Amino acid sequence: MQHNAACSQLDQNGRLRHFLSIAGLSRELLTEIMDTADSFGSVADQAVKKVPLLRGKTVVNLFFENSTRTRTTFELAAKRLSADVLNVNISTSSASKGESLLDTIRNLQAMHVDMFVVRHASSGAAHFIARHIAPHISVINAGDGSHAHPTQAMLDMFTIRQFKGQIEGLIVVIIGDILHSRVARSQIRALTTLGAQEVRVIAPRTLLPDDIQTIGARVYEQIDYALAGADVVIGLRLQKERMHGAFLPSEHEYFSRYGLTEQRLKLAKSDVIVMHPGPINREVEIESRVVDGDRSVILKQVSNGIAIRMATMALTMSSHNQTRSQQQK
Amino acid sequence: MQHNAACSQLDQNGRLRHFLSIAGLSRELLTEIMDTADSFGSVADQAVKKVPLLRGKTVVNLFFENSTRTRTTFELAAKRLSADVLNVNISTSSASKGESLLDTIRNLQAMHVDMFVVRHASSGAAHFIARHIAPHISVINAGDGSHAHPTQAMLDMFTIRQFKGQIEGLIVVIIGDILHSRVARSQIRALTTLGAQEVRVIAPRTLLPDDIQTIGARVYEQIDYALAGADVVIGLRLQKERMHGAFLPSEHEYFSRYGLTEQRLKLAKSDVIVMHPGPINREVEIESRVVDGDRSVILKQVSNGIAIRMATMALTMSSHNQTRSQQQK
Amino acid sequence: MQHNAACSQLDQNGRLRHFLSIAGLSRELLTEIMDTADSFGSVADQAVKKVPLLRGKTVVNLFFENSTRTRTTFELAAKRLSADVLNVNISTSSASKGESLLDTIRNLQAMHVDMFVVRHASSGAAHFIARHIAPHISVINAGDGSHAHPTQAMLDMFTIRQFKGQIEGLIVVIIGDILHSRVARSQIRALTTLGAQEVRVIAPRTLLPDDIQTIGARVYEQIDYALAGADVVIGLRLQKERMHGAFLPSEHEYFSRYGLTEQRLKLAKSDVIVMHPGPINREVEIESRVVDGDRSVILKQVSNGIAIRMATMALTMSSHNQTRSQQQK
Repeated sequence: MQHNAACSQLDQNGRLRHFLSIAGLSRELLTEIMDTADSFGSVADQAVKKVPLLRGKTVVNLFFENSTRTRTTFELAAKRLSADVLNVNISTSSASKGESLLDTIRNLQAMHVDMFVVRHASSGAAHFIARHIAPHISVINAGDGSHAHPTQAMLDMFTIRQFKGQIEGLIVVIIGDILHSRVARSQIRALTTLGAQEVRVIAPRTLLPDDIQTIGARVYEQIDYALAGADVVIGLRLQKERMHGAFLPSEHEYFSRYGLTEQRLKLAKSDVIVMHPGPINREVEIESRVVDGDRSVILKQVSNGIAIRMATMALTMSSHNQTRSQQQK
Repeated sequence: MQHNAACSQLDQNGRLRHFLSIAGLSRELLTEIMDTADSFGSVADQAVKKVPLLRGKTVVNLFFENSTRTRTTFELAAKRLSADVLNVNISTSSASKGESLLDTIRNLQAMHVDMFVVRHASSGAAHFIARHIAPHISVINAGDGSHAHPTQAMLDMFTIRQFKGQIEGLIVVIIGDILHSRVARSQIRALTTLGAQEVRVIAPRTLLPDDIQTIGARVYEQIDYALAGADVVIGLRLQKERMHGAFLPSEHEYFSRYGLTEQRLKLAKSDVIVMHPGPINREVEIESRVVDGDRSVILKQVSNGIAIRMATMALTMSSHNQTRSQQQK
Repeated sequence: MQHNAACSQLDQNGRLRHFLSIAGLSRELLTEIMDTADSFGSVADQAVKKVPLLRGKTVVNLFFENSTRTRTTFELAAKRLSADVLNVNISTSSASKGESLLDTIRNLQAMHVDMFVVRHASSGAAHFIARHIAPHISVINAGDGSHAHPTQAMLDMFTIRQFKGQIEGLIVVIIGDILHSRVARSQIRALTTLGAQEVRVIAPRTLLPDDIQTIGARVYEQIDYALAGADVVIGLRLQKERMHGAFLPSEHEYFSRYGLTEQRLKLAKSDVIVMHPGPINREVEIESRVVDGDRSVILKQVSNGIAIRMATMALTMSSHNQTRSQQQK
């Protein structure tokens, strides 16, 4: 049983024990994450922006690749829950002395830490760590390769729910580099789980994964058709740094075929919202006027990122506390 | 009105809303900063060196160029005010992914932070940020190009007042690289605003800015004349790393013409104090015996730096809180 | 008297004022450190892993060489004592602007900090700093060159005591690179002070210091003889990065002559414990099966590292508080 528990995101009561990917999580659980985030939304407006839920707990930001933006949101979330935060950048640590990932984890775990927030360039790294961690430690996936980035997906769901009331029945369009995006996969899963009517994707063929239709998205060839009647449009970053070889048309050509412009946005519903996970390449994948326009909820996504991260931290920690107190009885 | 408020350091009640430069601040306001710092001086002597003024607030150290020394003093000041501190080093962050300064700021602001401490290689960067920031966030300039470094200037004023009782009527000599010093300009402004009798500057002609006399300083050619009767002597660092081309005499020649020696110091008043913003090049711009001698208040400047930074943080935050509570009425 | 006090690890009452090296410390004092660590052991098991002993104190991690692992343990220890922690990495700070070590220290000290945790590549750096520091500041040596690493030695003693009840009468074997190990010297001193029956060392002759016998260890040539009847076996890391020139046999040859294998471990007592300071080169100095086997207490060492660091921080700080309150009477 302990083995099973260690391999899954859920504890024996079906509560969130780790947060590794959207896959396998029920609509109820995704909704619970959003409801919890809702309850933290007001913390940011208080004069004292802290709640004592994680006081005396140690959260380790274990970053195997640099991401100031993501690290910052998790650090803020942890501090607003009153946790102690330890930033460990592994490229500059023992890894360079040839220590294995597992030895690094075991060492940190021996220091009685309570949670790892893991960012890694390899898909599955967070799962691997969760599988080998002591039962009292939570693991939160802050992006692994091009596999998953579940807190980003959940902050997007949370933002959509805020503006649309629910995900159910919505038409959502995702434009751009689906292949290299750790966000897109998690988004599509979350959207389908939460009952979106249709998830449309559009991108150069070289930036679409082979299995795209099997995971519940419908591929479009022409952006005008994709945008027609859309409730939500999500632009993805053109991840130049991830591309090898001649995948792509020129930036100019890309923008003319896939760029999200004000003109094109008129094809969507009049109350469409525009989202982007950032950082943005203005005038490459999206027109600056759209970024700063009245349909954009991009900065709201950033704010919601803190609340969602607080929620997943609080939920996984509460699963552990519950398990611990049951064991003590 | 909101636009005006966003562009100025002062709120509509004339209180300090941001702290960007000495220029435009009244003698009363500079005095209020020093009086507030006075009230924090004793915090450092308490067993528990903390006051809860900024509890639950998030201060972001936004450093676009590396300065461990300055970052450290702001981090300590913020922690002693009980704030949460986030160090964001932008050279290693999204900037390298091509995100604009403005997008970076908007993102951090969306995370509900309360204050930016900004260090940037370009003059005017802190002003630019203050102009584009949300109304509830304070900006403190921690050095922008060779333009301003107002907290350094104020800790110098505070130190002079501590030893001389007042700035009014004093003769102050500034020796060295005025051209590249972000400190010197701020100092001269603060000294003249606070009623110094005379501010004398002396440096190789290539290290003096063209407008030096218009900002209230008197240029001397001979160090002996400059030091005669001085109450305060401020040595500046010979900023070798900022020099391009053949601005300068050799170090040896520089020391023989402008070096602050014990011998030369005898020309000043007997109760003269010697200051230096650090880090010091011993035996280049100043004799080691002077640095460590009984007229030196250099380490007192460092201590006062914490108190002044606490003061400017507390004052700008209190302006915002006041504004917020007025809006709520 | 103040001069004497500043040069020694002990205050005038014989209490621990700094923690620089094991040399010169009595068995009683080493035992007090372990007893204090014992009292902190349970803190890690509490829901809120904090005690308020250092609340409002500022601990500076002053690292002149990179060591994420060691820095992390001290940062955690300080935070669990409720101190504010400042990480100062000197390779990226004023040192590069040519400021001397002493000026750096004086500057930090002027900011009213309470403790320096010092890591430096040069032997004696922590002593040097302790000699020049203001009386109210404690210095803890976190490793200086190949000289000393006293908290590592004490966490090893603490771990041995935990498993063996006492150090007295034990046979302890240290295998590997004694010459370049900052740990081995401190360990040998601590073991002899605490009454170990025999400290055996074994290594290629090029990795043994000349004075090894004078500091209380007995050199063995054959690993089988060294292991015979051992209570404790400590493997040291083969510090490849410290070696210059042709000191060494090949890794393969090294492992075949000195590698700690399960087979060889059978020569030791049946209740032998195996230790290693980490990071480990698996299959180079130690067999992976031994690292993960039931005689290994390697991860227990890591846990105990936090408790020992908390203990030395608390004891040195309490010496200062006592001295201060005596002075005030």
